[in-house]
Amino acid sequence: MQRVAFQALYDEFYNVLTEVGFPDQRAALCAKLFAENQRDGVYSHGLNRFPGFVKSMKQKKVDFRASPEKVKSLGALEQWDGKRGVGLVNAHACMQRATELAQEHGMGGIGLKNTNHWMRAGTYALQAAHNNCVGICWTNTMPLMPPWGSAEKKIGNNPIAFAVPRDEGHILLDMAMSQYSNGKLEVMRRQEQQLPLPGGYNNQGELTRDPNDILESRRALPIGYWKGSGLALMLDMIATVLSGGQSTHQIGNQETEHSVSQVFIAFDTTKLEEQSILHETINTIIQDFQTVTPLDKNESVRYPGEGMLRTRKESLETGVLVDEEQWQELLNM
Amino acid sequence: MQRVAFQALYDEFYNVLTEVGFPDQRAALCAKLFAENQRDGVYSHGLNRFPGFVKSMKQKKVDFRASPEKVKSLGALEQWDGKRGVGLVNAHACMQRATELAQEHGMGGIGLKNTNHWMRAGTYALQAAHNNCVGICWTNTMPLMPPWGSAEKKIGNNPIAFAVPRDEGHILLDMAMSQYSNGKLEVMRRQEQQLPLPGGYNNQGELTRDPNDILESRRALPIGYWKGSGLALMLDMIATVLSGGQSTHQIGNQETEHSVSQVFIAFDTTKLEEQSILHETINTIIQDFQTVTPLDKNESVRYPGEGMLRTRKESLETGVLVDEEQWQELLNM
Repeated sequence: MQRVAFQALYDEFYNVLTEVGFPDQRAALCAKLFAENQRDGVYSHGLNRFPGFVKSMKQKKVDFRASPEKVKSLGALEQWDGKRGVGLVNAHACMQRATELAQEHGMGGIGLKNTNHWMRAGTYALQAAHNNCVGICWTNTMPLMPPWGSAEKKIGNNPIAFAVPRDEGHILLDMAMSQYSNGKLEVMRRQEQQLPLPGGYNNQGELTRDPNDILESRRALPIGYWKGSGLALMLDMIATVLSGGQSTHQIGNQETEHSVSQVFIAFDTTKLEEQSILHETINTIIQDFQTVTPLDKNESVRYPGEGMLRTRKESLETGVLVDEEQWQELLNM
Repeated sequence: MQRVAFQALYDEFYNVLTEVGFPDQRAALCAKLFAENQRDGVYSHGLNRFPGFVKSMKQKKVDFRASPEKVKSLGALEQWDGKRGVGLVNAHACMQRATELAQEHGMGGIGLKNTNHWMRAGTYALQAAHNNCVGICWTNTMPLMPPWGSAEKKIGNNPIAFAVPRDEGHILLDMAMSQYSNGKLEVMRRQEQQLPLPGGYNNQGELTRDPNDILESRRALPIGYWKGSGLALMLDMIATVLSGGQSTHQIGNQETEHSVSQVFIAFDTTKLEEQSILHETINTIIQDFQTVTPLDKNESVRYPGEGMLRTRKESLETGVLVDEEQWQELLNM
């Protein structure tokens, strides 16, 4: 691992994208989002995903010139068509629109269909928070998870993100419905390591921390056993209904994951209460939370997004952590 | 256990409430909601809770004549004050209002402060679905759960419910952020039974199915370990911001749980798409889901709310299941 300046990382992303043919503004946005994911420590959806992202553009699997279009307006709620364009661009445009609707109506919602992988769910919730909104967004995916009571992949892991604005850094929860991703299980298997907590079943039907056993039984755990399984199905259903787009089972009938459905919700906080009072409210909740006694006296109990804010600070002060091979690959692009 | 007719159960609830002094319409609503919770198999928030509910009215802890009042309107989003009135009445009025806002703006949201226990989260999500809306609602609670990394109760279990309308019975997910409630742990301890799945830690820091060990260590599991812990905090924070009401830590400073904060969101589905097409979309998702191979060939893999719909049907055909002692207690009231 090595550290590179945020600006250098951004510039490399930007240069590759303009070379592929991305229009200027769009290259700038995507370069920024990829660089920010890496900066915030979301190494699963940063630099490592960039070559695949560029490849899908070159192979014309994603139409990088398409612009999302409003299909229907019901006032505070709108339906948009992503036209199979760039997932990051579509998602960013739709959360932007949701915050505009929130400024007008108090809250705003967008159902987006025919879009592509947005990389990191938290990006768009943070975007809402940056506009003084509470943000909630989720996406469906292809079938990645067995529902509770089965070993057959049937439901998406359907990541959802929540953000609450705060001057000292927004509070952010970003989570998939699977306890551990398949990617994580595979990495741990390769490293011959046990998971920190039970993440699925072995073939004998026992809960296990062994990634090998879980990949073999195909019974990775949804969060909270039956609860996360049910929530994944609900999120898919609501995304499908609000967007008029594809549900997980339809995405699963394709050869690859594309044309997914997403939801963006924003609540404008600026008219709810004076911002100074709101910020005090949030900070009081966090301060009270931080008085909790940790089990491990060397650790603190963290609020959602606390680790991210720490990593971000470190990245900006000392450089963004990158895998040397991945960085070289980017430089060679 | 015995079975009594739904109407008989309703009548008994209604009679007690009018005797306590509930105005007619309000008695009818609360009797209906309690009876429906029992009918749907939600035995944790039906008949068993009724004596306590009545007692809190008699003790004037809850002002059963108070009506919720609109405090602020931002268009599609409104803030309401529950005036420490009846939780069921306040929640019902606010979800009703959210669906009206949804009919007008596509979506509607309410932040409700100063309200009391609403019994069952699912009641109000189903209410939205009954009005052809997708419904989402959640409540904060007093501190009931240790956050991830602590054994100190600090966060609420903050139940949330999601419903999607469907002619054959609405799809419903109703869940708290704790894997098992304290009530459940205590019942299992009394019955000297093990939990079906690990529900917390013992004092040695090992995951366990022993309710006794969990109650002793006070380390009951949030769903999905750190994920449900984070989600509980986010839901509290968002409910507090949107309602302008109390957060979990403030509720915890009181002697009893009252003056909680809640959120109600409705999306009107009728203008999104023709209802027949929407229903087909939902049914296709469910039908595809039901093709999944169950691990246990004698069991089916159930969608959220499927068990409830079955219990409801049975209750209406053969009578609502009631605990004999609880039923006698109601008759004696």
